[in-house]
Amino acid sequence: MAKVLITTVPFGDKNRLPLEMLESAGIEYLINPHNTRLTEEQLFELVTDFDAIIAGTEKITDRVMARATKLKLISRVGVGLDSVDLLSARERGIRVSYTPEAPAPAVAELTLGLMLALLRSVHVSNGQMHQGKWQRIFGRRLAETTIGVIGVGRIGTRVLRRTRGFGTPRILVNDLVPNYELSREFKLEWVTKEQIYEEADIITLHLPLTRLTKNMIRREQLMSMKRDAMIINAARGGIINEHDLAEVMTGGHLSGAAIDVFEHEPYVGPLAAIDRCLLTAHMGSMSIDCRSRMEIEATDEAVRFLTGKPLASEVPPVEYDVQSQRL
Amino acid sequence: MAKVLITTVPFGDKNRLPLEMLESAGIEYLINPHNTRLTEEQLFELVTDFDAIIAGTEKITDRVMARATKLKLISRVGVGLDSVDLLSARERGIRVSYTPEAPAPAVAELTLGLMLALLRSVHVSNGQMHQGKWQRIFGRRLAETTIGVIGVGRIGTRVLRRTRGFGTPRILVNDLVPNYELSREFKLEWVTKEQIYEEADIITLHLPLTRLTKNMIRREQLMSMKRDAMIINAARGGIINEHDLAEVMTGGHLSGAAIDVFEHEPYVGPLAAIDRCLLTAHMGSMSIDCRSRMEIEATDEAVRFLTGKPLASEVPPVEYDVQSQRL
Repeated sequence: MAKVLITTVPFGDKNRLPLEMLESAGIEYLINPHNTRLTEEQLFELVTDFDAIIAGTEKITDRVMARATKLKLISRVGVGLDSVDLLSARERGIRVSYTPEAPAPAVAELTLGLMLALLRSVHVSNGQMHQGKWQRIFGRRLAETTIGVIGVGRIGTRVLRRTRGFGTPRILVNDLVPNYELSREFKLEWVTKEQIYEEADIITLHLPLTRLTKNMIRREQLMSMKRDAMIINAARGGIINEHDLAEVMTGGHLSGAAIDVFEHEPYVGPLAAIDRCLLTAHMGSMSIDCRSRMEIEATDEAVRFLTGKPLASEVPPVEYDVQSQRL
Repeated sequence: MAKVLITTVPFGDKNRLPLEMLESAGIEYLINPHNTRLTEEQLFELVTDFDAIIAGTEKITDRVMARATKLKLISRVGVGLDSVDLLSARERGIRVSYTPEAPAPAVAELTLGLMLALLRSVHVSNGQMHQGKWQRIFGRRLAETTIGVIGVGRIGTRVLRRTRGFGTPRILVNDLVPNYELSREFKLEWVTKEQIYEEADIITLHLPLTRLTKNMIRREQLMSMKRDAMIINAARGGIINEHDLAEVMTGGHLSGAAIDVFEHEPYVGPLAAIDRCLLTAHMGSMSIDCRSRMEIEATDEAVRFLTGKPLASEVPPVEYDVQSQRL
């Protein structure tokens, strides 16, 4: 009987369908018994004996794969592939699938929420009010700000679409390959990242974590931003250097930041001491509908594979090229 | 020399123009020396000797007006008139102006921010993260919720416009007089307030505070809402009974609330002990641009009046009718 390890938690919590899909296909499964993101060591201990992993964002290294001698499929619940050593997987004949579309609407909507909260200091006022302190804080509207979007793919485009009703006068965008098609739908300025750092009032990142984007935003880039600018990272931890961000903000630079993703999760660190830093617990994809869709799609891949059907959403070669630094 | 009392604070803070307008017209002014919302007693002490008040939301009662023997104009910075005893003002020959359009975009944008924050528990997660606690909380997207808007005037309409990019499937609206014109622009269902309480997942209020709307939402109405529904009040304190809201939420009903306005401000009370209650310090109009526009418009009225020109934005008779319960 085929066996699946489900590492991402919670799973099947709001909607039991993915578990029922496995059960009715006669596939045995184990849900991560640690109930938190697995360390490499924990995964190493668990992974023997499984034919497939329905995976979260825990690191799946070559060492783990070497131990998992029966493993033939990694089905990622989500879009980021930075956690999976794709090249090792390929060498070992382990196929990798993902769910690239499913999380996008939820991440985009959270991003808008973070943007509006930052612009009006909602998080700061809420903290003060719960401590019995009353201070009316001035803010800005999207109609008076320049937005910078770095990474205009599935999620970045959906962010743009949701800003439509707000009358934002100027939108700066950057991507590896500019998608000029988008300029038919939105009024955009395609510029360099440096220009976004210098000119945008609020910057949001929608990029994968790769060797090129890791630590892309350090002290130097943060200091080139306007003193009262704001930055949002709901993409991947490590794109903004957390240590530099904490230092720069402690020094009074930037009027706000919203960070949903961290280099090490669960996050513990100095950003938690900065009131104007809005922190959320990697909740970008955590809307009930998107999360269900991700779990169902990733489970469907595992069921297809283990019942001899072709994969529907296998990771394309371009992602392997990105990870091997060919892109 | 004409003298103006400016009670609303901060004033002329981000943009000094309104103070310069007074100075260049040769009008003397005093900015509220208490630097917080005045009590009736404080205003009573201050108010003698002024020809006009550029007013915030402090109560301007008949007793205060009786004392202000020279007072001929109240120019409200904002749109709400619940704080001014309009009928006494009329009897005493004191004219009243306001700035009904200026705050609307800022209030609507904050409302969207509060809505998205509530739907994804951004405020709850931020509080936990700053205490070193990591919990990934499920949320909902606007595309999966039914919105209820009670009061679809200047602000409510702008809220609707800003939800456009989010694909909300069902919008329930209610107003004293349905504005069917709006149904050309938006897909709306005009329903009773009771139907909104029972069917909406997230309710937002955009009403004036009148004898009809005071305590409009009490325990009974709150309990008729879905157990996991949410409610936003960025209109006026007292429309939702705060005491009942705190009790009902403490009992586990409602999955969230966002309250920007309070019966007594600065607010001190039991809502501050409820983590899923998002609280802000009456910041609806507090975007730099809208606030400036409000201050400039209200000052312009005072300058016009005191230099013998006609008022441009006098409160219309319908507002007097509302207050006298004729509407």
